[in-house]
Amino acid sequence: MKALVFHGPGQCAWQEVPDPELEAPTDAIVRIGTVTICGTDLHILRGELPEVTPGRVLGHEGVGEVVETGADVRGVRPGDRVLISCISACGHCRFCRERAYGQCRGGGGWILGHTVDGTQAEYVRVPFADLSTHPLTGSAEGHDAVLLSDVFPTAYEVGVLNGRVGPGDTVVVVGAGPIGLASIATAQFYSPGRIIAIDPDAARLDAAKRVGADAVADSAEDPERLVDDLTEGLGADVVIEAVGSPRSFESCTRMVRPGGRVANVGVHSRPARLHLEELWMKNVTITTGLVDAYSTPTLLSLLTAGRLPASTLITHLFELDQMEEAYDIFARAADTGALKIALGEAARPLVTREK
Amino acid sequence: MKALVFHGPGQCAWQEVPDPELEAPTDAIVRIGTVTICGTDLHILRGELPEVTPGRVLGHEGVGEVVETGADVRGVRPGDRVLISCISACGHCRFCRERAYGQCRGGGGWILGHTVDGTQAEYVRVPFADLSTHPLTGSAEGHDAVLLSDVFPTAYEVGVLNGRVGPGDTVVVVGAGPIGLASIATAQFYSPGRIIAIDPDAARLDAAKRVGADAVADSAEDPERLVDDLTEGLGADVVIEAVGSPRSFESCTRMVRPGGRVANVGVHSRPARLHLEELWMKNVTITTGLVDAYSTPTLLSLLTAGRLPASTLITHLFELDQMEEAYDIFARAADTGALKIALGEAARPLVTREK
Amino acid sequence: MKALVFHGPGQCAWQEVPDPELEAPTDAIVRIGTVTICGTDLHILRGELPEVTPGRVLGHEGVGEVVETGADVRGVRPGDRVLISCISACGHCRFCRERAYGQCRGGGGWILGHTVDGTQAEYVRVPFADLSTHPLTGSAEGHDAVLLSDVFPTAYEVGVLNGRVGPGDTVVVVGAGPIGLASIATAQFYSPGRIIAIDPDAARLDAAKRVGADAVADSAEDPERLVDDLTEGLGADVVIEAVGSPRSFESCTRMVRPGGRVANVGVHSRPARLHLEELWMKNVTITTGLVDAYSTPTLLSLLTAGRLPASTLITHLFELDQMEEAYDIFARAADTGALKIALGEAARPLVTREK
Amino acid sequence: MKALVFHGPGQCAWQEVPDPELEAPTDAIVRIGTVTICGTDLHILRGELPEVTPGRVLGHEGVGEVVETGADVRGVRPGDRVLISCISACGHCRFCRERAYGQCRGGGGWILGHTVDGTQAEYVRVPFADLSTHPLTGSAEGHDAVLLSDVFPTAYEVGVLNGRVGPGDTVVVVGAGPIGLASIATAQFYSPGRIIAIDPDAARLDAAKRVGADAVADSAEDPERLVDDLTEGLGADVVIEAVGSPRSFESCTRMVRPGGRVANVGVHSRPARLHLEELWMKNVTITTGLVDAYSTPTLLSLLTAGRLPASTLITHLFELDQMEEAYDIFARAADTGALKIALGEAARPLVTREK
Repeated sequence: MKALVFHGPGQCAWQEVPDPELEAPTDAIVRIGTVTICGTDLHILRGELPEVTPGRVLGHEGVGEVVETGADVRGVRPGDRVLISCISACGHCRFCRERAYGQCRGGGGWILGHTVDGTQAEYVRVPFADLSTHPLTGSAEGHDAVLLSDVFPTAYEVGVLNGRVGPGDTVVVVGAGPIGLASIATAQFYSPGRIIAIDPDAARLDAAKRVGADAVADSAEDPERLVDDLTEGLGADVVIEAVGSPRSFESCTRMVRPGGRVANVGVHSRPARLHLEELWMKNVTITTGLVDAYSTPTLLSLLTAGRLPASTLITHLFELDQMEEAYDIFARAADTGALKIALGEAARPLVTREK
Repeated sequence: MKALVFHGPGQCAWQEVPDPELEAPTDAIVRIGTVTICGTDLHILRGELPEVTPGRVLGHEGVGEVVETGADVRGVRPGDRVLISCISACGHCRFCRERAYGQCRGGGGWILGHTVDGTQAEYVRVPFADLSTHPLTGSAEGHDAVLLSDVFPTAYEVGVLNGRVGPGDTVVVVGAGPIGLASIATAQFYSPGRIIAIDPDAARLDAAKRVGADAVADSAEDPERLVDDLTEGLGADVVIEAVGSPRSFESCTRMVRPGGRVANVGVHSRPARLHLEELWMKNVTITTGLVDAYSTPTLLSLLTAGRLPASTLITHLFELDQMEEAYDIFARAADTGALKIALGEAARPLVTREK
Repeated sequence: MKALVFHGPGQCAWQEVPDPELEAPTDAIVRIGTVTICGTDLHILRGELPEVTPGRVLGHEGVGEVVETGADVRGVRPGDRVLISCISACGHCRFCRERAYGQCRGGGGWILGHTVDGTQAEYVRVPFADLSTHPLTGSAEGHDAVLLSDVFPTAYEVGVLNGRVGPGDTVVVVGAGPIGLASIATAQFYSPGRIIAIDPDAARLDAAKRVGADAVADSAEDPERLVDDLTEGLGADVVIEAVGSPRSFESCTRMVRPGGRVANVGVHSRPARLHLEELWMKNVTITTGLVDAYSTPTLLSLLTAGRLPASTLITHLFELDQMEEAYDIFARAADTGALKIALGEAARPLVTREK
Repeated sequence: MKALVFHGPGQCAWQEVPDPELEAPTDAIVRIGTVTICGTDLHILRGELPEVTPGRVLGHEGVGEVVETGADVRGVRPGDRVLISCISACGHCRFCRERAYGQCRGGGGWILGHTVDGTQAEYVRVPFADLSTHPLTGSAEGHDAVLLSDVFPTAYEVGVLNGRVGPGDTVVVVGAGPIGLASIATAQFYSPGRIIAIDPDAARLDAAKRVGADAVADSAEDPERLVDDLTEGLGADVVIEAVGSPRSFESCTRMVRPGGRVANVGVHSRPARLHLEELWMKNVTITTGLVDAYSTPTLLSLLTAGRLPASTLITHLFELDQMEEAYDIFARAADTGALKIALGEAARPLVTREK
């Protein structure tokens, strides 16, 4: 089959590789219909995740059709159309028993496109298929569903649910990339009073408005003052960090009200300063976390019910074999305006519909 | 009357001042029976809280007898023996409605011995008496009850409840001063599997064992390794910071397990480094906060039921007019072994009982 | 002034009575702008609440202007436009401290139009004004806001919040009168997957659709089978009882899924059968409760943000002095199609707008 | 092997049957060391559970040694000493994903000794072994651990956790049989202020005191008045029903305070009357449920830490082949004073220790 293979920092290729095979009775083989590219894939490609070794097929998001299942797979069968979760779960370890699948100690967690071959390929082996795939009904289109592999569960669990967004709340989302936008979209499940999006990019702020932000602020124009004004000096109930920089995180801790929550979703590579000399008496809750993907069934049901406009995040469509071009477009997001790129079958129905 | 008056950095005196008078219909005047000294009082005395101005009577903890009440005080009456909370509450603002009394925007919060005259005196005016005092039944002795003005609610709410201690949990308490010890004592209300206390002072570690720590570790002897060993490399479910230093806080974030909680109780004067490059994917919850004292009725009922050995924290007893000597002993805790010092009526029954 | 006075079962009159006066320093006098009539008022009129004695001014809902305040009222002042809560709160008793204001032991709870004179009058004395009134901003119209005195907080707290409605849930609301409709409207704050309304009245089912029900069922046409079909035999996540009959309640307990919640909002006058022989192993949570009105500030902020279409429940508008006619229309709701009737200033802006 | 076989109402025998064999890759075969008898076994024997068919080996509690495992069992291996949970869990269905294992739709739930052969035998096949067994460390003795198969998780989850027992609470436990006693024991994990046990049997009330009840009341002597007196007319925070009769349940709903919880643990065969005409405005939460056994790891860690005196419930010890005699003693509990009976290896160490 063809797959996108990592060859060390800065190098990857869409090339021929052996087809994957069942390795455990809980595995499934899925023929990929639609995939997408994640910001993390770019980190890998830059060599920032040394545990990803040359030869690895990348990708941890995908929708496809089950073609083969191990003897102990009970929930899906060949022919089923499924969503592949970015998180695999053994289902038995202490973390899986508490639905903290992302912390799985039994061989799961984030493994696809990381420590085992991933989804940016024509076929993929999905370990622990029963807990790591979700059957799709006919009405869920691939380009919508594929965003539920990672970006939507991450934004919803690590941002919205950790931040405990509630009716009437003032919610600030710092960073209007795909994760920030998905946070804005899913925060609305809890009817906040208003959502304020902050980003340096005007196009992304426009996108933020489209997915439901009530107010937007350019990062360069004192967004902290805006939040201060809008909340009568109190601060926001919930601040979601979706950038991954110390500066952004520190700003979040200044914009939150006493008793409020700062939910970190950004991927950080450096420490931040935590101003405990101000925060110690402010009753603040700060959360961090990798997605566990326990919310995927809920998100799928909301998608099916027409309440999650997932594909509004998709800016570009490609065929699977245009993978290298798609990576290029995605890596130059500031220039290309790329948010999420869908590849594969997704390309066709969308094009058709837009005619 | 006599009271301890702050006269600027490094200066205070037990001296004659005018008796307090009712200023609002919700005030009560309380004749002090027992008081204690808080670490925060030492910070004030060192001039570290500039909002405390010369002439202020210090103290925010106390037990006494109501001698006069304003026209709109309904819950207590002259003759009632009461516990004075360190937190005053207007009861009407948005924070009070959510029981976040420490954040009161209606004139309350921590005001006693801070922005209004306090309890280290023969009499004190207690604003918002209905929500800021708690009637004591006969069986609660003053030297026990006075520790429920501040130290026990602080440890319980900001440490144990924010940290969500639960049955079977491994709990680490960093710092075995009064707040750390009270955290150890109240953590046991939730039956953790084990409590590990960390402190550089052997005497305080002994005290930690007396109040219920299952294991203790000298801060200098790699306590992080001990926690690692005891938890099979996983980390603690809950880590309570009761020191107030960046180094201690940073250690807490290394000792917590994925999915665990770090509850900061320490008073900090400098920022700490938050290692988001490690924590972003660790599913950690960090909380900060000033006490709200919403738990005081619960703690009082447990004290009355004989389930809270509060006075085990008391190492020294003095008469009220020995206030200056008591401050000296308390300020030199490393030498004197002082934990909590009770002054006033408390001195007598204890002495009697010990005969 | 003029007021609606209860004169014993079946008898009331809009008549001249003495103006109310301040009786406690926490009282406020409010000039009524808009009032409404509650189903409970009809129960009183039928003599079913013997604690309501002849001579009582009825009504526990209202919007108006503060004209006088007691010496200890701090949150509102003469000239303020306020919403009057159906629940008065002393703010100090153990229940008020836990925000269970409806259970107030300090002289509050549901007292207006019950044990003290109420709001169906030109003026009303509001006890505990600081906790029992809510200032209105200019943009909240009286006919919207008055529905936040009782019906919306009741539906939201006792139905939606007690029932823990969550994203994706299947919610069944039994009874599409004002409380049921307000439950349907506020359940949407939590983005359920679908809401199914059940009622015998086709007009009320139409109203249910207008406020957001996804499916409706005639009570006579086996609604339990509909729920069964829609949930693949599992049952609903949340069932809200908004009728108040044993038959309706028992049906609720059959329609709920294992692990689901039955939230009773209906006012009952007879016991129901609880089929513990089926329910004991079904993991069901059943809640009951009187409104506490702790959610009123949240609902007001959502109303102001344009997210709570409260006045869609209003079917009739009258001037205050048409009170007797309004009662007649409301009492014959089956014939008149009345849901909520607003009286007073509300009548004019609406009429104006509709031109 | 030998096993206790059900032969229809009133008939069972300890007899030779074929050894169990692996049927699925997730099965394990366990050699039984210790078992016990549950009240439910008596219901089966009386023919009250028609789904239990003649030929079935009874028993759903047990401790033993794994002797064989299927190809897909990863968490235990031959030679491991394990606790067998009364609840089997597929781990993949929507209920298992939410830890509601007792409601498993994937072939689990309560199946042992119910729809598949059980543990009152020399060997048992345990389906879904990874989630349905728990490895035991050396220090947990079989006669302690076997009570964590069913009675302790049931009392803890369905009584204490559903009832949300908290520090300082007044807890009433109605029924002092094994489940009621285990509720009293595990309620103490949350430091209630006092626990009141109610039962008609003086010996059981003595046992209640031994496991931690602070007060006891004979069911015949107006226990409702006692609760009323002890709570100053307010009622209990939590009432746990551990009898299973309409009369007992109805009494529970009268003894609970406004805002309190009634947790039903009893197994009922008839409906009760729910006095909604009184309860509708009382803010009560009523819960029902079958055990899910999600708490077993926590209970095991507390047992290992010496904090769960499980075996104080054991009144009789027998060898496995005395099963029929044990059933007889257990069935005549009113005469024999039997609480829990342990059979098997348990008999020996206890006897030894008591010498």
